[in-house]
Amino acid sequence: MTVRDDLLPVPADPATIAPVVARELFREGLSLPTTGWCDGYAQANLLVMPRDLAYDVLLFAQRNPVACPVIDVGEPGEAATHHLARGADLRTDLPAYRIWEDGRPVAEVRDARRHWCGDLVAFLIGCSFTAESALREAGVPLRHQEQGVNVPMYVTARPCRGAGALHGPLVVTMRPVPADRVAAAVRVTARYPTAHGAPVHIGDPARLGIADLARPDFGDPVAPRDGDVPVFWACGVTSQAMLMASRPPFAITHAPGHMFITDVRDAAYQI
Amino acid sequence: MTVRDDLLPVPADPATIAPVVARELFREGLSLPTTGWCDGYAQANLLVMPRDLAYDVLLFAQRNPVACPVIDVGEPGEAATHHLARGADLRTDLPAYRIWEDGRPVAEVRDARRHWCGDLVAFLIGCSFTAESALREAGVPLRHQEQGVNVPMYVTARPCRGAGALHGPLVVTMRPVPADRVAAAVRVTARYPTAHGAPVHIGDPARLGIADLARPDFGDPVAPRDGDVPVFWACGVTSQAMLMASRPPFAITHAPGHMFITDVRDAAYQI
Repeated sequence: MTVRDDLLPVPADPATIAPVVARELFREGLSLPTTGWCDGYAQANLLVMPRDLAYDVLLFAQRNPVACPVIDVGEPGEAATHHLARGADLRTDLPAYRIWEDGRPVAEVRDARRHWCGDLVAFLIGCSFTAESALREAGVPLRHQEQGVNVPMYVTARPCRGAGALHGPLVVTMRPVPADRVAAAVRVTARYPTAHGAPVHIGDPARLGIADLARPDFGDPVAPRDGDVPVFWACGVTSQAMLMASRPPFAITHAPGHMFITDVRDAAYQI
Repeated sequence: MTVRDDLLPVPADPATIAPVVARELFREGLSLPTTGWCDGYAQANLLVMPRDLAYDVLLFAQRNPVACPVIDVGEPGEAATHHLARGADLRTDLPAYRIWEDGRPVAEVRDARRHWCGDLVAFLIGCSFTAESALREAGVPLRHQEQGVNVPMYVTARPCRGAGALHGPLVVTMRPVPADRVAAAVRVTARYPTAHGAPVHIGDPARLGIADLARPDFGDPVAPRDGDVPVFWACGVTSQAMLMASRPPFAITHAPGHMFITDVRDAAYQI
């Protein structure tokens, strides 16, 4: 599902560029997963819904705060975030968008301006990429970054708490972690509650209803190394599984792994 | 403003009774502040608003999470909380309620059933009383409890972030803390983000726009002891100052300090 573009230049070291530069590249049409980009800056999931469903969205988030930690909400009709990145345009500054109708992604685009109209409300939801710098600094290797792919995401058998018209299953990211670094991975990510916090599950994927780690529902498969344990964090793509299950007439989201990069330092979300 | 009742028996040691017993006493008509009641159980602020303002309430809370950490939201028209206390009736199980019209408290009652009708939505908001057991265990004396009064609350000059039709100033509680226990008070309460977390201010009340600590806007004045420093936490009564400033047509709240006592252990909210 990943939209790639071989025509636009990819920065030599995307980890070191500023968020405003990354957003400009995405606005110009560059499209790829943002894991590892803009080291030290928080990233966010995007969910855009009609105003008449906005209460249900916020309530769904309140009832499922680990999967859907809301870090900013726009005014109806406004595609800006005054608190996360002044001057950013949420319709163009992400690397890829999905357009949803009746719970199905009907298009994947690099520019959502044509679809963004009326009284839509933009919700920005924390992302586990925000804690990835801290994981690396704590000696936790990130296999998906080593392998140059998107993080794998899985729809679980665990239902979220419903809210009004909205319901759906929990989605998780998985990172293979060396057994002797699992405790460090828990300790570090627990300090980022708005980036999904500590893992929701460690070990046997079957306990989450995941049949085959090699076949993620979103993102790319990642090969574990010998001695790695699969560690699962709640994922903001839960909001997209919610769309699939609840079938609202219209929505816009980011494409999984293709996040909004904010101007806020990771550390601002650390407790 | 405190409603007291000298006819109903007050338990000899309210700290040791079970929440379900406390709620039954309040349902029968007992009415007094709940600080120190049901040691080890979380307490909550109540804000009840018409459904058409529910999105603005949740958004106000999302934008002011330290003052208004939402811990449960009822279904429209429902006066129950399935997650905080099964079987509780939010219309009767608090010791005192305020009825609001156009931003003014028009009545203070012990039973809100007569006023609770239509599509009202109940919001339960964390309370700093939840962290008081932990404060005491960390050697932080609680002067208001020593003096047998309600905690003092002050309207500050600090505006909250607005949300739709709702806006207003931050309200804080104040506890005088011995200088050598201030750090402990910060450390302990920081672990309860859904009970307002760490203090928002320590020391000079004028910096918050508070003219006179002896004249709180809600609750009772508390006399500091020699060497005490005033320590200020965000307060869920911020939601009542919001009513005063925003003047919605109708609302129900608890009376300040007269909280909903939940069946959830304090420790469940500790991070």
